[in-house]
Amino acid sequence: MSYETLDYQVEDGILTLTLNRPDRMNAFNGAMCRELIAAFDAADADDAVRVIVVTGAGKAFCAGADLEKGGDTFNRHKRQGEPEGDTLRDGGGTVSLRIYECTKPVIGAFNGAAVGVGATMTLPMDIRMASTKAKFGFVFARRGITMEACSSWFLPRLVGPMQAAEWVYTGRVFSAEEALKGGLVRSLHEPDELLPAAYELAREIVDNTSGMSALLNRQLMWRMMGADHPMEAHKVDSRAIAFMGESADAQEGVQSFLEKRPPQFKLSPSKDRPPFYPWWDERPFK
Amino acid sequence: MSYETLDYQVEDGILTLTLNRPDRMNAFNGAMCRELIAAFDAADADDAVRVIVVTGAGKAFCAGADLEKGGDTFNRHKRQGEPEGDTLRDGGGTVSLRIYECTKPVIGAFNGAAVGVGATMTLPMDIRMASTKAKFGFVFARRGITMEACSSWFLPRLVGPMQAAEWVYTGRVFSAEEALKGGLVRSLHEPDELLPAAYELAREIVDNTSGMSALLNRQLMWRMMGADHPMEAHKVDSRAIAFMGESADAQEGVQSFLEKRPPQFKLSPSKDRPPFYPWWDERPFK
Amino acid sequence: MSYETLDYQVEDGILTLTLNRPDRMNAFNGAMCRELIAAFDAADADDAVRVIVVTGAGKAFCAGADLEKGGDTFNRHKRQGEPEGDTLRDGGGTVSLRIYECTKPVIGAFNGAAVGVGATMTLPMDIRMASTKAKFGFVFARRGITMEACSSWFLPRLVGPMQAAEWVYTGRVFSAEEALKGGLVRSLHEPDELLPAAYELAREIVDNTSGMSALLNRQLMWRMMGADHPMEAHKVDSRAIAFMGESADAQEGVQSFLEKRPPQFKLSPSKDRPPFYPWWDERPFK
Repeated sequence: MSYETLDYQVEDGILTLTLNRPDRMNAFNGAMCRELIAAFDAADADDAVRVIVVTGAGKAFCAGADLEKGGDTFNRHKRQGEPEGDTLRDGGGTVSLRIYECTKPVIGAFNGAAVGVGATMTLPMDIRMASTKAKFGFVFARRGITMEACSSWFLPRLVGPMQAAEWVYTGRVFSAEEALKGGLVRSLHEPDELLPAAYELAREIVDNTSGMSALLNRQLMWRMMGADHPMEAHKVDSRAIAFMGESADAQEGVQSFLEKRPPQFKLSPSKDRPPFYPWWDERPFK
Repeated sequence: MSYETLDYQVEDGILTLTLNRPDRMNAFNGAMCRELIAAFDAADADDAVRVIVVTGAGKAFCAGADLEKGGDTFNRHKRQGEPEGDTLRDGGGTVSLRIYECTKPVIGAFNGAAVGVGATMTLPMDIRMASTKAKFGFVFARRGITMEACSSWFLPRLVGPMQAAEWVYTGRVFSAEEALKGGLVRSLHEPDELLPAAYELAREIVDNTSGMSALLNRQLMWRMMGADHPMEAHKVDSRAIAFMGESADAQEGVQSFLEKRPPQFKLSPSKDRPPFYPWWDERPFK
Repeated sequence: MSYETLDYQVEDGILTLTLNRPDRMNAFNGAMCRELIAAFDAADADDAVRVIVVTGAGKAFCAGADLEKGGDTFNRHKRQGEPEGDTLRDGGGTVSLRIYECTKPVIGAFNGAAVGVGATMTLPMDIRMASTKAKFGFVFARRGITMEACSSWFLPRLVGPMQAAEWVYTGRVFSAEEALKGGLVRSLHEPDELLPAAYELAREIVDNTSGMSALLNRQLMWRMMGADHPMEAHKVDSRAIAFMGESADAQEGVQSFLEKRPPQFKLSPSKDRPPFYPWWDERPFK
């Protein structure tokens, strides 16, 4: 598969997915929306991908919606060629939901400005790291529109309702330092050291852990954020640990630990999923 | 409308709502309960109000329930003239739910002690700022009663279950510094600089953002805190951004940004609400 | 009752529950699982217990599942004598749910390593304090298994989804400092000062607050973490504060405050529960 708006490179277990419209500050458009979903589909189907790192080409991470259409940018009836056809779906939200459903750990590596949908679509990524030169902005209220891409669900859960409110109400563009202090990103790095740091974290996962464990743990954590009682987790994790406990990966995980050597996990995240997976019902749009 | 327990002043887009029983440390009583609800009703109906700042007159913010009835303070059968009549509703909770439903950003400016219901009724405010002289206390367990005003829903979501537990179990009165460290307030200020700082934040919102965006964003964030899946946000925010995208506010928001000038938003938060609003069912008491 | 894997000591309102298999680093096994549940049952039934402090004997807090069976440790079909019989229930989850349901404040005092189920079963404790020598690890993915003990429900709510993801995906063992920074524990203490600090916090609760208030507040906070709307809290806390407001504990709580003397609360947490308690339906396993 070739991408027009992305660069897709797999090396040694790590997919680097680069937003790649540097002349437009990697602004989000219909093609990028479709291609991001396709790229996550490809990554989920490929056992050679264990961790996904998302970053941007050039100076920006993603400047948000491409404003080349000016005041009509957000007007569906005046746009042409948008992916939604005549359904009333926000494109950024289709990306957010696709990342939410991803079966691999996703690390956002913010090399530069992430604004509007360039920030909100990254909220379902698991871990966010930033260059000291990065900036962020949930600028919707300044553009006379609303927060989107499911960010009203994700942002207060990630940074707390008070910090979310301040960023969303003011619509301000804020520094990497403010993002760190507010809990949006986990760590700051010199620009040259951002990708190496992201790869180091990705390596820690790839080299030491089972891909099937990652798949089940990721689904457990995001799905149980919506569960009303810990019993719902108990119902699923009881089955998950019983399944994995009898697997070759548990044998290898315990043996390698007792023998103080690196593990060699064998289960295929795409093919060896447990019979009870998925345990949830799909949630349709409308 | 005139208020007995409050001061209500609108200036330049900002409503300052002052708890105004300084001789009783602004203690909460039936009249204050009724008037707070009326004041938020008035603010929501008035487009001249864009942001609400709540503070206290004199030394305290709100000392909690007025204890002038001593040990019978919390005994409904021995009290007279309370607002609940014979229904079994906690008065503080009716205020909390009214603030939760508010359509404008609400900033709490804690000039002094906020204890009991004086603390819990403020949890649905979006942003809390405090004087270095402020104190806080979820003192219910020391008075032999229970947390109220929906604080069991709000407090763990705002400061995390561990910090909420410590404050509620000990019932201790704690300093502004502890409130800042624990995430209850966003910032501390010298007493004279508290209101100016609150107004500066309010101004940032009033001068730069659309009131209709604020209304939709506020409802999205609080309502989606209760949603079990991000798809619920996607269903609503898809409609919200489609509605706003075709509006005069989106035209103005993008144009003013491209022209690097302050925006002049026109939509009326009270009159121009989208047809799908409200998208939720009212939640009755009992 | 005598315990094989625990030490159970009540003194002056505080139960110290010590995981007591120091020769096996207090590793979790079937007997410890059964006895922890029995100990929380005993504590809930005994009004002499107001606060529970959980710690470990010797150098470790709890090293997780006992790995003496090697690679078959997590294989249910090859184990003998496990408590679950032929039901498919994770043992750690039965402990987590029992602690979730506890009617008294629970403080975890981490004297040493807490790994695997030794960490996850402690997440429903209200407050976690650690020795500077403590370590933590959600190591499941390194052992080729999955997170359990309802930790997918608790951990993201306690430390946020981003920090939870990093700890669970990497499976790394991390220091007490990292646990403090990440919000898993509230404070660090020199090894000799850990239990004194836990007792000091417990005393603050025992000496100043009503046991019935603690019972209702604990159930309110944990149960309302699963409620979709603050109205659900209002429905219950309205009844709770009405019940407590007419009680001897409210009389004593307000009188002792006005008289500036320590309170002497009388309600029995085991016998004087309000008629609406429990207000929730039991949640069955499957």
